[in-house]
Amino acid sequence: MSRIHTHAVSVEFGDCDPAQIVFYPNFFRWMDAASLRFFRAAGVPPWREFEAQCGIIGAPLVDASARFLRPASYGDVIDVDTAIDEWRGKSFAMSHVIRRGSDVLVEGREVRVFATRHPADPSRIQAVPVPESIREWCG
Amino acid sequence: MSRIHTHAVSVEFGDCDPAQIVFYPNFFRWMDAASLRFFRAAGVPPWREFEAQCGIIGAPLVDASARFLRPASYGDVIDVDTAIDEWRGKSFAMSHVIRRGSDVLVEGREVRVFATRHPADPSRIQAVPVPESIREWCG
Amino acid sequence: MSRIHTHAVSVEFGDCDPAQIVFYPNFFRWMDAASLRFFRAAGVPPWREFEAQCGIIGAPLVDASARFLRPASYGDVIDVDTAIDEWRGKSFAMSHVIRRGSDVLVEGREVRVFATRHPADPSRIQAVPVPESIREWCG
Amino acid sequence: MSRIHTHAVSVEFGDCDPAQIVFYPNFFRWMDAASLRFFRAAGVPPWREFEAQCGIIGAPLVDASARFLRPASYGDVIDVDTAIDEWRGKSFAMSHVIRRGSDVLVEGREVRVFATRHPADPSRIQAVPVPESIREWCG
Repeated sequence: MSRIHTHAVSVEFGDCDPAQIVFYPNFFRWMDAASLRFFRAAGVPPWREFEAQCGIIGAPLVDASARFLRPASYGDVIDVDTAIDEWRGKSFAMSHVIRRGSDVLVEGREVRVFATRHPADPSRIQAVPVPESIREWCG
Repeated sequence: MSRIHTHAVSVEFGDCDPAQIVFYPNFFRWMDAASLRFFRAAGVPPWREFEAQCGIIGAPLVDASARFLRPASYGDVIDVDTAIDEWRGKSFAMSHVIRRGSDVLVEGREVRVFATRHPADPSRIQAVPVPESIREWCG
Repeated sequence: MSRIHTHAVSVEFGDCDPAQIVFYPNFFRWMDAASLRFFRAAGVPPWREFEAQCGIIGAPLVDASARFLRPASYGDVIDVDTAIDEWRGKSFAMSHVIRRGSDVLVEGREVRVFATRHPADPSRIQAVPVPESIREWCG
Repeated sequence: MSRIHTHAVSVEFGDCDPAQIVFYPNFFRWMDAASLRFFRAAGVPPWREFEAQCGIIGAPLVDASARFLRPASYGDVIDVDTAIDEWRGKSFAMSHVIRRGSDVLVEGREVRVFATRHPADPSRIQAVPVPESIREWCG
């Protein structure tokens, strides 16, 4: 099990829907932010610098899922605990436990790949093997 | 297998991220909209009317997941094909196939419950059994 | 001139568009959050409690504007300095200066009213005079 | 006065906030989309093609404002009537009238410039004079 990085989020009024609770796609928005914070905290440079270094433009999603256990609402401060669960050849799985204090609200999971622009068509992207430098950074 | 409802979405510039592709939480936003369109098309009234009728404030998520097969970008017009896969006691599963023409981009799935406000604390919500009227509407 | 409240925001990858800079409606999202933080910091209770106390459901917008002086991108940490510029009969003007360190990025302004649900039709809202308690809280 | 382009928007549940009405930054999101639709309808190519042709990456905002006259809520279908009010040297003003049928909800205005990447630093952008081809396309 790799390191855990915790990313704090303040739930805003505009993050909530007419049912007064967080509009659920926002939890994925926060997982995405937590993923990037995980990489930054591990020493991986911002994608725009990383692209200049090695062509990698980011880590797009292959798969995302979440179990919603308890709702959150505006005024809540929540934490996202992010870890890498598994390295595979071209993909890797991240877990995100979103909690308010010790109450777990959401259990999320993202499977991502590292991607470069397609050499023949820059509007397309392609997965590349996980760079060794990233595995080292992420320990 | 129930009826299928198709919801068209135009991908906007602001839906895309610096990698030039749709920022993935937006796919969940579109699935959520497609879910509601499914119910409206089936004859279920808007939640605010439905709450007045029977106390149900909406159909919050228990579980959501998606497989991302191909990216989309601004200018694309995509379709979300929504169906109810399974009725359970208090929950039900919806499938969402998001495609651009015949190219499947995302295979999504949502598990939802119908919820009312908690009688003792209106800031909390609670799941209720799927109303018979809704099962009839959704055929 | 009233007190100034500063609200810090971390710009996320998903807040940026294909031009690599913040998608501008997000600046209004952050101004809205900063407005609420201003009221909370001044001692005004969350809207859901305030509605129970005095029927006020929030402070919807009458007018919003912004001058965009410099772009921001992901990785930036920005501050929103919020103050109340002017109290009028039923409305009030808030200023929001968004800056990255000492570089001003956006000069925003919101004119808001305090609103209650319309007694004859709860789906409509109506402006009410600014409550004296709020003016006192906001000093 | 130039041509008017009308862009229809369906207001979704997730576009609304706990006050049951559209969270106001979404109106700016829809104005932004309407701006791009205006240019597409006028024959201006998508920015990603336009960048390849002439280096212009888009039309970022200099100024945006809106008067909010009536709220909207989910289930509403609204129209955005977009026109170019004024061409200036490096900037131009667009008006957006957002209405539900004949009821005007929002009167918006955006001032934009056409931008290219800064030659010395691709992470910065710079305004360029409005290309003659665009003025011709927009008639």
